[in-house]
Amino acid sequence: MTDAAPRRGRGRPTRTQTEAGPATRDRILDAAREEFSARGYEKTSVRGIAKAAGVDSALVHHYFGTKEQVFEAAVEGAMAPALGAPETIVDGPLDGVGERLTRFFFGVWENPTSRTPLLAIVRSAVNNDTAAAVFRRLVAAQLMRRIAARLDALDAPDAELRAELAAAQLVGAAMLRYVIRIEPLASADIERIVAAVAPVVQGHLTNP
Amino acid sequence: MTDAAPRRGRGRPTRTQTEAGPATRDRILDAAREEFSARGYEKTSVRGIAKAAGVDSALVHHYFGTKEQVFEAAVEGAMAPALGAPETIVDGPLDGVGERLTRFFFGVWENPTSRTPLLAIVRSAVNNDTAAAVFRRLVAAQLMRRIAARLDALDAPDAELRAELAAAQLVGAAMLRYVIRIEPLASADIERIVAAVAPVVQGHLTNP
Repeated sequence: MTDAAPRRGRGRPTRTQTEAGPATRDRILDAAREEFSARGYEKTSVRGIAKAAGVDSALVHHYFGTKEQVFEAAVEGAMAPALGAPETIVDGPLDGVGERLTRFFFGVWENPTSRTPLLAIVRSAVNNDTAAAVFRRLVAAQLMRRIAARLDALDAPDAELRAELAAAQLVGAAMLRYVIRIEPLASADIERIVAAVAPVVQGHLTNP
Repeated sequence: MTDAAPRRGRGRPTRTQTEAGPATRDRILDAAREEFSARGYEKTSVRGIAKAAGVDSALVHHYFGTKEQVFEAAVEGAMAPALGAPETIVDGPLDGVGERLTRFFFGVWENPTSRTPLLAIVRSAVNNDTAAAVFRRLVAAQLMRRIAARLDALDAPDAELRAELAAAQLVGAAMLRYVIRIEPLASADIERIVAAVAPVVQGHLTNP
């Protein structure tokens, strides 16, 4: 993939290239999300995304840049529900933060619409270092740090590590329930899981 | 790949096919482990394993059967250190089982020799349903059930689910530390991690 970001409309213009920005950009992003979900990071190409969106590859580069940047944009969109945890979840009363985060996390995973792209992201991140780096940047920057900052405000020691150990319990439960689908965890009532996991998340974040 | 398991020596005999069993079988298993580690389940072929071992594909089928069965044998070997948790770990005093399991788990992951094949297994299981099924069979059958049986002996409710929630904390920590390598968790002192994780594992297993 190239870093070149040629001006839109370069080369033989297509129907879509004559369209104005946002709609086309969104269509490319939807196509990218579908391609990365279906094939994973390594097997997806900017050319394939462009084809699926019905535009010229140059237009994909124009809007997003490299394949890694298209992936980051697609992941950011797909994880928006997960990353955009309402202020109230992180910044609400500290003694309920474990349950709020746990319910929010599983709410995103239990919803098939948000689960599918998340599964694709996890698979890509586990298999490709570039995809893993994107995952690290987004999760670390947007979610972990917000939680860590909340703990820092209370002078909790090693706040970032605590946030990551809490995330580890959530990520591991998602891995075994939704990805590996080990039973009985895969079919267990979500309330039973929340009841067991929320206190762990709370403990990692706030135990002395 | 085929299920046929022709008798050894079918077709043009090769130097290796004339060798007696165990040594050749082990060489095929080593080659399989390396191929699956390097390429993952989907991209690995019985032909490629045979080539790497310097034997005929028929010999691989003869010893192991299908690609899935070769994978299971390779995984079983690679996970032996993890699955073969000494009796003392699972069956020792219950009030220390969380720390014993946690130290054992990270001991396997911190050792580069045992970590490499485990990474390959996790990557394959996350990306391929057949590989995930093999992973489920081995982990569920060999480790989870032993732990659950230990808890059942104490009439702990939903012992298997408890064992899996404990495993989720361990698996999630391994994912973020060794696979995604999110900081500060990836570089944190292992004793700090054990200190935070062991009580969680203990709690999942034995809390009322």
